[in-house]
Amino acid sequence: MSGARVAEGMMLFGADWNPEQWPEKVNDADLRLMREAGVNRVSLGMFAWSTIEPQDGRFELDWLERLLDRLDAASIGVNLATPSAAPPWWLLDAHPEIQLVDAQGRRVPGGGRLSWCPSSAVFRHYATRAAAVLSEAFGRHPALSLWHVGNEFGNENAQCFCDECAIAFRSWARRRHTTLDTLNRAWGTAFWGHGYTAWSQITPPRTTRNPPDPGLALDYRRFCSDQLLAHYRAEVVAIRGAGSTVPATTNFMIAQGADAIDHHAWSAEVDVVANDHYTVAADPERHRELAFSADRARGVAGGGPWLLMEHSTSAVNWQPRNRAKGPGEMRRDTLSHIARGADGALFFQWRASTAGVEQFHSAMVPHAGVHTRVWREVCELGAELARLAPVTGSVVERAEVAVLWDAQAHWAMDAARPPTIDVAYPLLPERTHRAFHRRGIRVDVLHPDDALAGYRLIILPGLYQASAGLTERLDAAVRSGMHVLITALSGIVDDTARVIGGGYPGAFRELLGLRGEELLPLQPGQRVRLSDGSTAERWVEHLTPTTSRTTATFSDGPLRGLGAMTRRELGAGTVRYVAAVLAEESFDALAGALTAELGIRPPAAATGTAVDLVRRVAADGTGFLFCINHGAEEAEIAVYGEDLLTGRVARGTGAVPAGGAAVFRERRTSLSGGHHDERGQS
Amino acid sequence: MSGARVAEGMMLFGADWNPEQWPEKVNDADLRLMREAGVNRVSLGMFAWSTIEPQDGRFELDWLERLLDRLDAASIGVNLATPSAAPPWWLLDAHPEIQLVDAQGRRVPGGGRLSWCPSSAVFRHYATRAAAVLSEAFGRHPALSLWHVGNEFGNENAQCFCDECAIAFRSWARRRHTTLDTLNRAWGTAFWGHGYTAWSQITPPRTTRNPPDPGLALDYRRFCSDQLLAHYRAEVVAIRGAGSTVPATTNFMIAQGADAIDHHAWSAEVDVVANDHYTVAADPERHRELAFSADRARGVAGGGPWLLMEHSTSAVNWQPRNRAKGPGEMRRDTLSHIARGADGALFFQWRASTAGVEQFHSAMVPHAGVHTRVWREVCELGAELARLAPVTGSVVERAEVAVLWDAQAHWAMDAARPPTIDVAYPLLPERTHRAFHRRGIRVDVLHPDDALAGYRLIILPGLYQASAGLTERLDAAVRSGMHVLITALSGIVDDTARVIGGGYPGAFRELLGLRGEELLPLQPGQRVRLSDGSTAERWVEHLTPTTSRTTATFSDGPLRGLGAMTRRELGAGTVRYVAAVLAEESFDALAGALTAELGIRPPAAATGTAVDLVRRVAADGTGFLFCINHGAEEAEIAVYGEDLLTGRVARGTGAVPAGGAAVFRERRTSLSGGHHDERGQS
Amino acid sequence: MSGARVAEGMMLFGADWNPEQWPEKVNDADLRLMREAGVNRVSLGMFAWSTIEPQDGRFELDWLERLLDRLDAASIGVNLATPSAAPPWWLLDAHPEIQLVDAQGRRVPGGGRLSWCPSSAVFRHYATRAAAVLSEAFGRHPALSLWHVGNEFGNENAQCFCDECAIAFRSWARRRHTTLDTLNRAWGTAFWGHGYTAWSQITPPRTTRNPPDPGLALDYRRFCSDQLLAHYRAEVVAIRGAGSTVPATTNFMIAQGADAIDHHAWSAEVDVVANDHYTVAADPERHRELAFSADRARGVAGGGPWLLMEHSTSAVNWQPRNRAKGPGEMRRDTLSHIARGADGALFFQWRASTAGVEQFHSAMVPHAGVHTRVWREVCELGAELARLAPVTGSVVERAEVAVLWDAQAHWAMDAARPPTIDVAYPLLPERTHRAFHRRGIRVDVLHPDDALAGYRLIILPGLYQASAGLTERLDAAVRSGMHVLITALSGIVDDTARVIGGGYPGAFRELLGLRGEELLPLQPGQRVRLSDGSTAERWVEHLTPTTSRTTATFSDGPLRGLGAMTRRELGAGTVRYVAAVLAEESFDALAGALTAELGIRPPAAATGTAVDLVRRVAADGTGFLFCINHGAEEAEIAVYGEDLLTGRVARGTGAVPAGGAAVFRERRTSLSGGHHDERGQS
Repeated sequence: MSGARVAEGMMLFGADWNPEQWPEKVNDADLRLMREAGVNRVSLGMFAWSTIEPQDGRFELDWLERLLDRLDAASIGVNLATPSAAPPWWLLDAHPEIQLVDAQGRRVPGGGRLSWCPSSAVFRHYATRAAAVLSEAFGRHPALSLWHVGNEFGNENAQCFCDECAIAFRSWARRRHTTLDTLNRAWGTAFWGHGYTAWSQITPPRTTRNPPDPGLALDYRRFCSDQLLAHYRAEVVAIRGAGSTVPATTNFMIAQGADAIDHHAWSAEVDVVANDHYTVAADPERHRELAFSADRARGVAGGGPWLLMEHSTSAVNWQPRNRAKGPGEMRRDTLSHIARGADGALFFQWRASTAGVEQFHSAMVPHAGVHTRVWREVCELGAELARLAPVTGSVVERAEVAVLWDAQAHWAMDAARPPTIDVAYPLLPERTHRAFHRRGIRVDVLHPDDALAGYRLIILPGLYQASAGLTERLDAAVRSGMHVLITALSGIVDDTARVIGGGYPGAFRELLGLRGEELLPLQPGQRVRLSDGSTAERWVEHLTPTTSRTTATFSDGPLRGLGAMTRRELGAGTVRYVAAVLAEESFDALAGALTAELGIRPPAAATGTAVDLVRRVAADGTGFLFCINHGAEEAEIAVYGEDLLTGRVARGTGAVPAGGAAVFRERRTSLSGGHHDERGQS
Repeated sequence: MSGARVAEGMMLFGADWNPEQWPEKVNDADLRLMREAGVNRVSLGMFAWSTIEPQDGRFELDWLERLLDRLDAASIGVNLATPSAAPPWWLLDAHPEIQLVDAQGRRVPGGGRLSWCPSSAVFRHYATRAAAVLSEAFGRHPALSLWHVGNEFGNENAQCFCDECAIAFRSWARRRHTTLDTLNRAWGTAFWGHGYTAWSQITPPRTTRNPPDPGLALDYRRFCSDQLLAHYRAEVVAIRGAGSTVPATTNFMIAQGADAIDHHAWSAEVDVVANDHYTVAADPERHRELAFSADRARGVAGGGPWLLMEHSTSAVNWQPRNRAKGPGEMRRDTLSHIARGADGALFFQWRASTAGVEQFHSAMVPHAGVHTRVWREVCELGAELARLAPVTGSVVERAEVAVLWDAQAHWAMDAARPPTIDVAYPLLPERTHRAFHRRGIRVDVLHPDDALAGYRLIILPGLYQASAGLTERLDAAVRSGMHVLITALSGIVDDTARVIGGGYPGAFRELLGLRGEELLPLQPGQRVRLSDGSTAERWVEHLTPTTSRTTATFSDGPLRGLGAMTRRELGAGTVRYVAAVLAEESFDALAGALTAELGIRPPAAATGTAVDLVRRVAADGTGFLFCINHGAEEAEIAVYGEDLLTGRVARGTGAVPAGGAAVFRERRTSLSGGHHDERGQS
Repeated sequence: MSGARVAEGMMLFGADWNPEQWPEKVNDADLRLMREAGVNRVSLGMFAWSTIEPQDGRFELDWLERLLDRLDAASIGVNLATPSAAPPWWLLDAHPEIQLVDAQGRRVPGGGRLSWCPSSAVFRHYATRAAAVLSEAFGRHPALSLWHVGNEFGNENAQCFCDECAIAFRSWARRRHTTLDTLNRAWGTAFWGHGYTAWSQITPPRTTRNPPDPGLALDYRRFCSDQLLAHYRAEVVAIRGAGSTVPATTNFMIAQGADAIDHHAWSAEVDVVANDHYTVAADPERHRELAFSADRARGVAGGGPWLLMEHSTSAVNWQPRNRAKGPGEMRRDTLSHIARGADGALFFQWRASTAGVEQFHSAMVPHAGVHTRVWREVCELGAELARLAPVTGSVVERAEVAVLWDAQAHWAMDAARPPTIDVAYPLLPERTHRAFHRRGIRVDVLHPDDALAGYRLIILPGLYQASAGLTERLDAAVRSGMHVLITALSGIVDDTARVIGGGYPGAFRELLGLRGEELLPLQPGQRVRLSDGSTAERWVEHLTPTTSRTTATFSDGPLRGLGAMTRRELGAGTVRYVAAVLAEESFDALAGALTAELGIRPPAAATGTAVDLVRRVAADGTGFLFCINHGAEEAEIAVYGEDLLTGRVARGTGAVPAGGAAVFRERRTSLSGGHHDERGQS
């Protein structure tokens, strides 16, 4: 990440616009409506390859130039997409081998999108040529604000198993492991007699009658992410080679606990972190999932501003039951992203499609047109975001609690044939974030390699694989006063997906002062009580404290009387372990006990618990307190300052209506205190 | 449909008979038993290709001729099958390419049945040659009563995705859309950049990582039905070319809401509409599903008599749990079909197979032989059907309520990536039919192109796609006094599966006098109350009345306070809308309110609600009131006339025993009154 | 089965040891720990092909020789594996055609295990060459105690559908059926026109749009088991050809009701019956499943001693939720197998893998090392088994109840398109065994061809297919005083999977004195009451008694008032039928009534019902009463003799602690009495 600013002094607002899919007169209307709504940014051309290059090497760009000119005239910036998400039929017809092969060995035919093989030299040739042509044509166009390279890398092509990938994977594996001996050891191929005696024997983990070797499966996920990144880089090189210096990015999919690619590794390669996020209809607390995803996105952005590249005004079209958003919900969602560091919020898409797979996806202009609630709310939101211009460039106040998340740990757990099917990687991080969110406590989401200093409490929720050096850094941090909570399913394997012997959790047992003997998945519906009143489900562990002491025991179940939670005092801090998957309400209680003990509080006092409070702080110390009320009753916030949305000034108390929001600009104050409370100063 | 009569003056009774699967002496016994049971019609040869043509071009027909002669001697008519349902191994071995390719690209191997590709020129050659040979040999045989072309077209081969189909589909698409521009517009290919630049790029919607484009998927269903129909026609041409003028048909599968083919389009091509129907073990109200399917079959037959080509004496073998029928149930089922217009009822099959995939399918002669309840009931039924000869040729009295059903709308909904998985096409028509059936109100099932005149109430239950001209015809009908009820999920797309913009339901919003803004699928278990006491589930819609008035509002849920039902007075009639999927009991209540308001009543008064009452009327005005008692108590019917089954005469009141049936021949009366009530005349 | 003894005078104890997967120094530690644990037998080399033969034809055996020498020095015997379970990559690379093709036509790629085609000539060449090389090298080595040929034949390769199998299947079918006419009749190919006119048309039952013909599907299962057996034999021939006379076997998978191969047919070919067994985490009564599997294994071994080749110290890794065993549970499991005839109990595996697919499978040495409960229990168990040396060679006392089990009946039911999905073959045998096990009554599991004499009660629980001659042998046995209980779903088809006509159950209706008319699967949740208070579920049958009398009728449901159970007196015995699947508790009650009526009692009196009591009897008449207490309270057993585990002597009463076990050596007594009770003699 080059640290390019998302935008200069304005909160971005707009959408994917696909004018090539509509008649000219609709385009005219669109431009008028965009002004009405306050749109200042659109993404163009994502699926326009067949329009841009209708035949091999014949490019038609006039239409696009006209649009860029008109957008420029309208002061609407453009994220110009390279079109690789949607290769045209002439290319698929001539080169079916650009399409990925699935784990069953089936080449995916044309007709969808994004199913190209990331190792395909032919595809890379065509994709980079198109990128270069666009860069030459528009790389210096005044409307061009950001390159939007491809689309949602990995969404349909997270893994390809073709022979071209096999060849590339052998090279990748050789670079990583140097010798076959090292590789055989790393992957543990001796088990089931899979020892390789020639590099050419290495193949992708295609479906057999058994699960793949975990070491191989993990490396293959890494390889696939690297191949996609290599493709991304090649497109950027083509853009730069054609002379454009405009920042470039691609839209990540940090949402719902997914890791199609390793966002941390990618973040160094994009000029701006951009993310797509859609709420989950089936989740009654979907705004908490949003908060977690936004916190993850900010973590990937290194804490600085990022761009919400896609979200929706109302329903999406790809969930089993695509719930429409209620009145005010779009606004709360958008402001929640901005509160958590987004310097702009775009939608997929501008105008609802009437045909195609996404015909029932909501848009800024719905099927029913502008005499609709959705359109009215869109216009109101555009006006409000304009009033939030002062917020841009500010950073979200550091939280006191951090949660570690690592795509590598995620993939390692996916790669295992696990002791139970009931604990997938995202479960524990999600449950952890949600527990604090329910109490109004902000959480930063860090990568294990990020600096840990400055936090009161660091949590490793099921961090299945510990990256190198993490244990030592945690040890040092604890000695200097930090508190660490590690949960079951953490630190079990090393970076080759190999179990660390000698007692679970191998990576952390010395730090924790305990030795785990056995992992005990529970059966469906089985619950275990703990001596502190907690309830465990899905998973418990048999441990023996060494240098730690037991703070709770199992009251029943297979480990009755044995230790369930431990605490070790170490220097100025503590390290705690929970040898169980706690039920949601028990994890909530644990979060409550920890925050009480450590004196961790929400960023401001508020009535009720339904208000999400996040403070962004500008370079000059100005605070912006975002207050988003997800509840059914008006809330009162202890705050001083002007609500940028309404212009009303709060003098000690600010009201936020049920389902509403406020953004208070707070008086400048010291940043050093962590908490930002002006009460004493008023 | 040529309008050939099903049979001349007798109620057909019999089964599929597969004598080639049994020893000669069993055939002898079968012929004796057929006489005992009153069989007057059998279907022969459906799976006999390998017996008829044991080697390429070598036909062995003597055995068949002998059987036809013996059947003729026994006065048993024959539906002679062309054998295309079961290509022999020598053909599969020489031409594996006659088998269909599935959406995954896998060619289905031999060993099943009916899996031939409808575009295969090779298969058509062999199938039509066999048909011609049979026609030459037996086309004038006195036993031959009906050609039974193939079997259940589309059951295993509703769609093929092979390259031969791809070529045929390109021609089909060219005929339909003329130019690629038109086609691209129709299918909305611009979305996701699927624009075709050459006809050769068009391929069947094989499985990709995404759902197919709805416009393409819909056209492919149409194409497949057309290809199957072309094959059917080719076989008929071969039969006619060999000189036979005996009527021809094939057995449809109008059952359980399925539309493997477009029965309406096919009905013009068959000389007699024939249908296969099997009750659904898991459905506690399976007799209502039967009634709906029979009403659909009659609708396909244009209201005239049709033939029940297959049903079962007891259990089938292909459901998860194959329930056996209880005492009297086969009789009620058979008579229910006849009540609804069938002029005969045949079974699959005559004698239960001991081997093969259908070895546990019931038959007229069960595994256990003739000392069985099933055989006794078969013989009693045969005797009863003989007494119903006077009924043949009569037509079912026109209902006052009609429901529109359209395979095109069905396929369009299947082709969409829908807002919710919880509302498949058949749900709303089925729920509608069932609501009226529970109240004893008869329903005709019409195709949208059928004449609408003469009905009091027309219902469009989730008619997702409106065919051309329907809105105008409804408008005219309403102005002249008809009442129309349209439910949610109707009229959303045009005939290219494209959403009609400007407000839902695009096709009907002017007629309805409202504008819908948004579609709101509900989550599982979510219920919404309406102000009239109704409950909605699965789906609600946000609408604004324009020229209509709101008759019920949502009392809670996402649209609290907004309109849920509307009514527009238009000329002498009304148009109503229900902007929700009503729970079954609420839809029942709505049906009750409508019938009360419009004065729609059952065809005769009866005690209780368990008696299904249907009147057929002969050309001379004689009525035949079918009374089928599905309840556990004797019912009394207000009727005058002789029960053809028992010979007993009802003078104002007829009794129908629990689980029993009666068919009263009513005195001749005027047909014009719609209702046929002699009470005043007695 | 040659009748080789499992071992000479010692109870085998040990595990699969995979030293090639670990560094040398771990091997050194392993040998020390094996002595500590009392290990006297290890299995070597199962997955070591790539180590033994790293390149085509280059064998490296020195490492193995050193290990054998060291094991010999440590007095640890070796089961030396031929390595065919895990073909090396160089072989897979050169000959991908050795891998099986699945029913969809997909060749399984390398990367798993055991997926070789049993018909592959190439694979057989390589596998037998490796076996011969091992035999030449180690066939006379003093450590070699048993050849362990391959591993779990059929686990991943129970069926292959490749063209090489197709060719072999044609030969197999020709040998079995001689002519195509016979074959066509046997398979009932006339149905659906599948009649073959050339042998070359016969293909494996690859997946079509329909289920396969039952006759074909059943023969294909037989063929596949035969092909696997041919491969086993070929490996043994190679071993013998190289001069080794050490007994040979392979590990069966008699567990959880599975029949990957026909163990009865295979038992004649192995020198010792060996079995793998793992308990089922999701089954709360998993010790009963263990008992049934062990009784099946003993039945396959003809009643004599057998070897438990694999079980687990704690969790496995391949179930959805891999439950760890509780304290004492491993010991109870091991002793339960020994009680039921095992002369040794080995584990998979010695040392827990840290990598590979089975990294979370428990072992004798866990991940956490030797300071663990599991290791302590392993050492205690090793010491105890040493004290059980006197038990070896003894045989399990004949039970009074026998249950018939037949893989052929199992496969026949699997091959059918059945009337219901709710009754798979193992259900009724399992429910039967469990009912008696709950009452402490021992059950022998016999093959239908086994001698039936000597039992009081023989049960045919859902023996879907009756083998030739069984009915006559049952008839004779009953006349001479035996009692027979036959349940629903027995005797329905013959050995070609063809329904036996004339009334169900065709094979037994004369013997039973009844005639069944119809099979009536029930719907989910549907229950039917019987006049004796029983409850039926899933399935009832309509029958008419002929020479039997009805002992219970259906009180409700579709057969209200008709017979549900019958009894026929025949000579000195009785034959009974249950025309329903009884609910578990009702089957338990029936078992109780039968045992009471026939005076069948447990082998010894005990308090409570949680103690599993099994007596083994030595050639000299010494009894060994195994008492395994699965309950939570101490139990008292009426017994005289010394507990071999503790050395304590019981004089009329022996105590077995909660969760504990005892093995009492009883005074020599007559074997003739069946029951072995010394009370009167003390």
